[in-house]
Amino acid sequence: MKARVHVMLKDGVLDPQGEAVRHALGALGFDGVEGVRQGKVIELELADIDAETAKAQVGEMCEKLLANTVIESYQVEIG
Amino acid sequence: MKARVHVMLKDGVLDPQGEAVRHALGALGFDGVEGVRQGKVIELELADIDAETAKAQVGEMCEKLLANTVIESYQVEIG
Repeated sequence: MKARVHVMLKDGVLDPQGEAVRHALGALGFDGVEGVRQGKVIELELADIDAETAKAQVGEMCEKLLANTVIESYQVEIG
Repeated sequence: MKARVHVMLKDGVLDPQGEAVRHALGALGFDGVEGVRQGKVIELELADIDAETAKAQVGEMCEKLLANTVIESYQVEIG
């Protein structure tokens, strides 16, 4: 079973990486870019378990390791 | 208009970050994790343009800046 986790900085937390990308895009002539946020995506290949258990387990992984929940939010997709 | 870009290392390209996460998850007692790939997700806020133009423009951003197409593949979602 596959799971995909998105980890993004929470709204209001400064994202220097995203800002750097925005500036670089502007310098390349892409004028219409009003904001950029950069985060991580983590794709997990899990041993055979049902979707519900997988979702709970991946949520626990996020809390313990994958995300810094003080400043980051995460989103889990299963399947 | 919002756009989301996923940038992942191509299959076959070694992903040391993903491997590090896999080991760390194992050390935390998550046994069922068979593989981990880590990539980037970039969320763009674009000035008002239609979806087709946005998709083409974001594709160009990926080719020029957001992805290293030698070793990375990208996927663009609009909306």
